[in-house]
Amino acid sequence: MTFDALDELSVTTLRTLAMDAVQRADSGHPGAPMALAPVAHVLFTRVLTHNPSNPSWPDRDRFVLSCGHASMLLYGALHLSGYDLGLDEIRSFRQWGSRTPGHPERGLTPGVEITTGPLGQGCGASVGMALAEAHLAARFNRPGHTVVDHRTWVLCSDGDLMEGVASEAASLAGHLRLGKLVWIWDDNRITIEGSTELTFSENVARRFEDYGWRVLRVADANDLPAVAAALAAACSASDRPTLIAVRSHIAWGAPAKQDTADAHGAPLGEEEVSAAKRAYGWPADEHFLVPDGVRERCRQVDRGRAAEAAWAARVAGWKERFPELAEEWRRRLAGELPEGWSAALPGFEMGGKGIATRIASGKVLNAIAGRMPELVGGSADLGPSCKTVIEASGDLTAAAPGERNLHFGIREHGMAAILNGLSLHGGIRPYGSTFLVFADYMRPSIRLAALMGLSVIYVFTHDSIWVGEDGPTHQPVEQLASLRTIPNLVVVRPADANETAAAWRVAVERRDGPTALVLSRQNLPVLAGTAELAGDGVAAGAYVLADGGSAPAVVLIATGSEVALAAAARETLAARGIAARVVSMPSWELFAGQPAASREAVLPQGVPRLAIEAGVTMGWCRWVGERGEVVGLDRFGASAPGKIVAVKLGITAEAVVERALALVGRG
Amino acid sequence: MTFDALDELSVTTLRTLAMDAVQRADSGHPGAPMALAPVAHVLFTRVLTHNPSNPSWPDRDRFVLSCGHASMLLYGALHLSGYDLGLDEIRSFRQWGSRTPGHPERGLTPGVEITTGPLGQGCGASVGMALAEAHLAARFNRPGHTVVDHRTWVLCSDGDLMEGVASEAASLAGHLRLGKLVWIWDDNRITIEGSTELTFSENVARRFEDYGWRVLRVADANDLPAVAAALAAACSASDRPTLIAVRSHIAWGAPAKQDTADAHGAPLGEEEVSAAKRAYGWPADEHFLVPDGVRERCRQVDRGRAAEAAWAARVAGWKERFPELAEEWRRRLAGELPEGWSAALPGFEMGGKGIATRIASGKVLNAIAGRMPELVGGSADLGPSCKTVIEASGDLTAAAPGERNLHFGIREHGMAAILNGLSLHGGIRPYGSTFLVFADYMRPSIRLAALMGLSVIYVFTHDSIWVGEDGPTHQPVEQLASLRTIPNLVVVRPADANETAAAWRVAVERRDGPTALVLSRQNLPVLAGTAELAGDGVAAGAYVLADGGSAPAVVLIATGSEVALAAAARETLAARGIAARVVSMPSWELFAGQPAASREAVLPQGVPRLAIEAGVTMGWCRWVGERGEVVGLDRFGASAPGKIVAVKLGITAEAVVERALALVGRG
Repeated sequence: MTFDALDELSVTTLRTLAMDAVQRADSGHPGAPMALAPVAHVLFTRVLTHNPSNPSWPDRDRFVLSCGHASMLLYGALHLSGYDLGLDEIRSFRQWGSRTPGHPERGLTPGVEITTGPLGQGCGASVGMALAEAHLAARFNRPGHTVVDHRTWVLCSDGDLMEGVASEAASLAGHLRLGKLVWIWDDNRITIEGSTELTFSENVARRFEDYGWRVLRVADANDLPAVAAALAAACSASDRPTLIAVRSHIAWGAPAKQDTADAHGAPLGEEEVSAAKRAYGWPADEHFLVPDGVRERCRQVDRGRAAEAAWAARVAGWKERFPELAEEWRRRLAGELPEGWSAALPGFEMGGKGIATRIASGKVLNAIAGRMPELVGGSADLGPSCKTVIEASGDLTAAAPGERNLHFGIREHGMAAILNGLSLHGGIRPYGSTFLVFADYMRPSIRLAALMGLSVIYVFTHDSIWVGEDGPTHQPVEQLASLRTIPNLVVVRPADANETAAAWRVAVERRDGPTALVLSRQNLPVLAGTAELAGDGVAAGAYVLADGGSAPAVVLIATGSEVALAAAARETLAARGIAARVVSMPSWELFAGQPAASREAVLPQGVPRLAIEAGVTMGWCRWVGERGEVVGLDRFGASAPGKIVAVKLGITAEAVVERALALVGRG
Repeated sequence: MTFDALDELSVTTLRTLAMDAVQRADSGHPGAPMALAPVAHVLFTRVLTHNPSNPSWPDRDRFVLSCGHASMLLYGALHLSGYDLGLDEIRSFRQWGSRTPGHPERGLTPGVEITTGPLGQGCGASVGMALAEAHLAARFNRPGHTVVDHRTWVLCSDGDLMEGVASEAASLAGHLRLGKLVWIWDDNRITIEGSTELTFSENVARRFEDYGWRVLRVADANDLPAVAAALAAACSASDRPTLIAVRSHIAWGAPAKQDTADAHGAPLGEEEVSAAKRAYGWPADEHFLVPDGVRERCRQVDRGRAAEAAWAARVAGWKERFPELAEEWRRRLAGELPEGWSAALPGFEMGGKGIATRIASGKVLNAIAGRMPELVGGSADLGPSCKTVIEASGDLTAAAPGERNLHFGIREHGMAAILNGLSLHGGIRPYGSTFLVFADYMRPSIRLAALMGLSVIYVFTHDSIWVGEDGPTHQPVEQLASLRTIPNLVVVRPADANETAAAWRVAVERRDGPTALVLSRQNLPVLAGTAELAGDGVAAGAYVLADGGSAPAVVLIATGSEVALAAAARETLAARGIAARVVSMPSWELFAGQPAASREAVLPQGVPRLAIEAGVTMGWCRWVGERGEVVGLDRFGASAPGKIVAVKLGITAEAVVERALALVGRG
């Protein structure tokens, strides 16, 4: 790779576009784009395999801007390389309705693979993307037929590498030998509070070697040939991911603000912008200038089209040879579910000791896994407890990336970030699991999944004080409520095995956002009625499980393990002449999405309501109304056998009966 | 240090007590205690400086069991060394009301420094404890007078070291050169899912060297002299924290289950327990056996009392020489606030451009910091943004640990875990800050602070869509609600600068749990009335800021930045002949704690209520009732100037007026 004056002009164009956009918006982060412009230029014009005219080309390289605040760098590169992102969009940086938001948003801007901003998340997700590539390559490539073969490139900051989620993901990436993953680390020695010497004196490069990565170095980000050489070296075959440490200078070229924390997250100011332009040999009074020849130099459309065409030819040959395989691949990339998949959903019969919903979930997963090879996932070291192991498949390892059982280790946050990447890549329906109480560890990644509308599935087990002896640190009380606060996350807490099968159906069929399945540790009876009603009932979010005649005196609303309590209470109340309707409400979000008339049919006006859930009461007023009541828990749990904790903390059928009587008495 | 048969008997006693307790409870984790018994024995009887008859001795060494599931190991060691924990308590392991819960709980069991269980948390907190020691030593020791001088010891597992929070804390510990911090890593190569080879192939020891730690090794946990030598070496002066990698075997001695994942978290079974006992040369039919001589060998009461007496003598000499210093130290350890401290709380006047509550918070912090030297804290790289820098103090660095401004780096979770340790140590009132949206990163540590009742202060700024251009990844919408779900966490969202001062007062005066202050990025007017009313009003959780005459037609309830909107709406409504009462409700938890009559006085029955808050509406039904309404946001934000986002998403005074009119019209 050789570089000339036109490349230098292109690099400066990226710098000035960023300065101008931030200045015009009077908001944003000029420093990182100015520092990394040379890297982005080389990456986008010489290294990245991509087709700007088709951002959805399945075999494109993936680029992740983990330091999402450097968004203007990405937008400038996308613009110059020929994506559908015009200069007017650049001018509208950070304005309502533009396609150039402050931090990149997937789905909004062509060429943006992932929404980033919160540090460490892009790094984590990139491991999922690289893992997806390795998995799909193992599943779909055949000797002489390579249809999956691309790299995952990341630009990340010091901040990203300080974040625990990135450390977790990096460790796993090294363990899994993801040789096509490259993190380009912007080693600029600056964070918001000042020099990294304030907080960050670890030997980062050696740490990555300790994770099993190879580390390359570029002494000066402005040295285009050196950058190119490092990126080329990163493309050489490897059984290790690559970290490229690039020494850069934040706000490079700005006479007063280069290498200062000030230049990180605030406009440089008109004066400093002009001064930098003069230092670059740029006309100081021009804004959003793209000199002649730059677009032509940077444009990748022709090259991209050619690369995609060559790939398409390979695919055609492969498709002819392996038509079924190709159809499965097409189906998975399109996100279509296999025909008749739901016929595999098992039903469960009443009687016996009952079955924990986590165990039912394991049976459901294993029942549908055969029909849905795209289901790939695992646990943060709790596979046997969460029952998320696909028995018919092996462990996904470095040597066997085509297998389906992922072992994330004790790395909940890394797991969730990786699930995002697996989902974003396409072709995979990922799921992850842990104890519900540890959902807290992975919340930032769950939020991003909801924000991006990714159909990730979370299996959260051991969902209440019924965890028992492990005590308050392991007994969730507030996690259900806290998950319900996240927009676009559907939370489903099935009451029994049949509702669990229905819940999995909801999760699998969900296309525009994540689903959390909240499951019990303890055995639960298969309830009368769920075999017939759960399918539609769970999808509707709530349904009448057992009625109270034509005019119930009270409606008992419960979720998960507490539905059985409600059912038992109903019997006791009936014996005392009080008709109670039992409503199972596995999902607030799904129920809220029902038409008002349907909801009214389930929760009729004027009938007192009592909710029962072994968790904090916050939010239940929405469903029980002012005069309704809640049997819940607004305190942490305690270490003792689950049955005893439930009794001591008042989550019993007797407590339900008592409160229901008081409610009815009052009305 | 030499060891004999009585030591071996003591070690076996620890092993068998653990097996028996777990077996009797039919629940628990036998493997780790059996593996680490030798380490615990040497630590508790030869190395740890502690006084079992006074678990609160300020200069004791701190011991943290980060792998909290090994709780029986700790309980056994506490029992044998003479803490007030009898054998009957050991027999009651994991039962309701016992002082031997499944995972150790601080405040419940003498000798337990911290509640652990969720992996990584103990490691993170230990950094705070060691930091507290270094800080207090710098502040209170004088030449010839050493009153603060102790170590922090941690037992941790593979799982702890996989967790991101521990990585973050380890990096900072190395940076801060905490030479009296020792992590003993149980290198047993086993996790719940099996061998660590499944997921964990990094070079852990080298990684810690890269963080700036020194690493020692013990090839065999059963080798008492080798363990002792390593622990002794860890006590040598160092400018680096120490990691001791101890190769152990989970469930050592159990013929069938040693080195298996099965032995991690389930009782061994009667048969295997007997087999292990036979292998130990133990009477297989004895349970909870403590052979003659073992207690005497292990008992540390006399040694501990002597050590404490020697220390007390030093303190007496120091106190005589430095009476004021000693009084400050006494006051801080007792958790007493300095007399008259609140006189330093500033007041703010109306007028001008207003002042962001984050900026007011910075002024308040700096105003009280001089009177409260125990306030030590900082930010996860957002000090200048969160305004949490104490101007009169310097940066707390390795060279200057007596300073007060902590730079945590981009490590929110590590920060929060460290704050727990700073608090647990005693003598320090720690605070930490970041953007509200990133509170998600540190949630597990916040939960533990609430569970333990630690008076940690969180400063969360940039608290709503008013963040503006940084977009949806930086605009909190659900964080307020999600924080409110955590029991014993008080969340305060002040409306203006005066409420902010009052909020700080609440946080500082809080002794039994953490407080989260939620503050604006943008300028907010100082509201009429807050100068007089905020002091009591904020403490009460909600108060009438502006009334609507003797019979208001509607009550507008708002928090934080939305109170100004409510005030503006009130004026508009008044001009239209509708009397509106404005209630500022900075804290749900505080208001909920008020007597019903007081709450009724603020929110009178029968008057329609409209709540206004720029966040998800979940939970507001509690305060506005069935017929009340909420102006809120049940969706993610968008990138644009804050003012525009607010208008587009309907968080305006006009929207409030409109909804209020509809409400009143309906009634």
